Amino acid sequence: MVTSIFPESASCLAISGGVGGAKLALGLAHSLTSEQLNIVVNTGDDFEHLGMTICPDIDTLIYTLAELSNKEQGWGQANESWNFLAALKKLGGPDWFQLGDRDLATHIMRSNLLKEGWTLSEVTAYFCSLLGVEQLVVPMSDTKVSTQVHIKNGATLSFQHYFVRDRCAPVITGFDFKGIEKAQPSEGFYQALDDKSLACILICPSNPFVSVDPVLKLPGVDMLLQAAAAPVVAVSPIVNGIALKGPAAKMMQELGMPNTVLAVAEHYQGRIDGFVIDRSDAEWKPAIEDLGIRTLVTGSVMVTLQDRIDLAEACLQFAMEIRV
Amino acid sequence: MVTSIFPESASCLAISGGVGGAKLALGLAHSLTSEQLNIVVNTGDDFEHLGMTICPDIDTLIYTLAELSNKEQGWGQANESWNFLAALKKLGGPDWFQLGDRDLATHIMRSNLLKEGWTLSEVTAYFCSLLGVEQLVVPMSDTKVSTQVHIKNGATLSFQHYFVRDRCAPVITGFDFKGIEKAQPSEGFYQALDDKSLACILICPSNPFVSVDPVLKLPGVDMLLQAAAAPVVAVSPIVNGIALKGPAAKMMQELGMPNTVLAVAEHYQGRIDGFVIDRSDAEWKPAIEDLGIRTLVTGSVMVTLQDRIDLAEACLQFAMEIRV
Repeated sequence: MVTSIFPESASCLAISGGVGGAKLALGLAHSLTSEQLNIVVNTGDDFEHLGMTICPDIDTLIYTLAELSNKEQGWGQANESWNFLAALKKLGGPDWFQLGDRDLATHIMRSNLLKEGWTLSEVTAYFCSLLGVEQLVVPMSDTKVSTQVHIKNGATLSFQHYFVRDRCAPVITGFDFKGIEKAQPSEGFYQALDDKSLACILICPSNPFVSVDPVLKLPGVDMLLQAAAAPVVAVSPIVNGIALKGPAAKMMQELGMPNTVLAVAEHYQGRIDGFVIDRSDAEWKPAIEDLGIRTLVTGSVMVTLQDRIDLAEACLQFAMEIRV
Repeated sequence: MVTSIFPESASCLAISGGVGGAKLALGLAHSLTSEQLNIVVNTGDDFEHLGMTICPDIDTLIYTLAELSNKEQGWGQANESWNFLAALKKLGGPDWFQLGDRDLATHIMRSNLLKEGWTLSEVTAYFCSLLGVEQLVVPMSDTKVSTQVHIKNGATLSFQHYFVRDRCAPVITGFDFKGIEKAQPSEGFYQALDDKSLACILICPSNPFVSVDPVLKLPGVDMLLQAAAAPVVAVSPIVNGIALKGPAAKMMQELGMPNTVLAVAEHYQGRIDGFVIDRSDAEWKPAIEDLGIRTLVTGSVMVTLQDRIDLAEACLQFAMEIRV
């Protein structure tokens, strides 16, 4: 299973948001042993809803790695039922956030453990162990960070209101990560960065603005990434001008950026050593390399499990090449 | 629909626990207009579970009157699914309390409204209005009262731990209603007792010790019942030595009482004017009347909807006869 070029003694730290990131994380989980892979997950999307703490990106990662996920939609559980939500609607409750019956157990258990004093890292590790996820899935922080979306009419929306309730319709002007200045990277994030065998820091093809930036902008992370001996490689979430999932391309246009892989590379400039783009974007390679970022052109659209594994192995190989 | 003997200007206040009481309440709801019927429900069984406030007796009443209930088991909703509970178990959560997927919406919505500052009376009225329940269903109190079960080994169990988790197996020695000395009857309970048209106070065939006593032992209730012009009529939950539902007969034996309708009548003595027993217990009528309690012998086993209606009408007629 293990890629020949990635030695058994080397480890990879993946930084992931939700659906897109989880696809690559699953590929990595097939390419590496569980000891070789740590996954740090964005928690800026987390929110309080109906008295529960909901962590959409962590759940997507856990469900994906536990083979529980709904493969068509990418989030939520397979064979899910929706009777809670139907009954909630009858009782005048908010039904804009999709809460499946099985999924609800995750939110209720997590919320109770947090109220009992567990950290989010502890809850996440506990869930992974119960669901057979052997990789270390780590929240970026155990302190609450809340992504806020500034929209054109001057209002500010919490991320899930923008993303789910309003279906990304409002025109955005920028973002804030409320609480980030007081947040610490989680102990597990520190440990993964401090791992002597760390050979690749991989930024998954997640939304740069709302999935990756909250992780990178945690106090101290920029410095730790620069200090790390391992190369930082990002996979573009934009392919041929389109975000395969989510509003990244729309956001870029609204922020006055071209929705190109070059613009994503510029966004990450100074923080990454390598960039992975799809074959359909090959023309941008010279311009990205002009930024001082080594660029790998490969197939980055992940439809099948084999696509995920192939991209994971290409990224690991690329990181090893940069490292040499 | 309205019984000929019960005038349109007269109203009935039913005091109910869960399953047994809800059966008679449904009969009353078919016999009386919604203006004529108020139902005060035990809240001593209420408890906090997984961060939610659960009110089993109120839910049973609402589901029954809304025609949403699972008619076989008497509690919970019909066409219920159990995917939440299965997922919760996988996550190491407690699965001793049956939480159906639809039912969960009630608990989550209620808990949130309570946290927002609604009273339990307000939440209950709101749910009734949304689910098409026209009768006034009123919690006995808006203050928390928690039934505690003392068991033979000296330990004390919360009611749901005794009732559901331990399936009533422990031998009981007595009960406490924690918080009752500081609890007030709810505003709706007061208003129902103060209703000038009140012509019948009906204690449903619920468990005398853990479903009815918490209501009757609220501060001031005894006095208000005695001061009421309307007769107080109780329906025996014991039929031929057996509790049709729940642990009433077992409790009576453990408390050193014979499990007879006479012993139930003695338990209520001084607080009721009339007592309704099943035909199979007709032999006890003289002994109960010797206690100064007028006794009606009728069919009190409610299998069909018509049984419920027949018993409701017999009780109303009996109350009118006592009143004359």
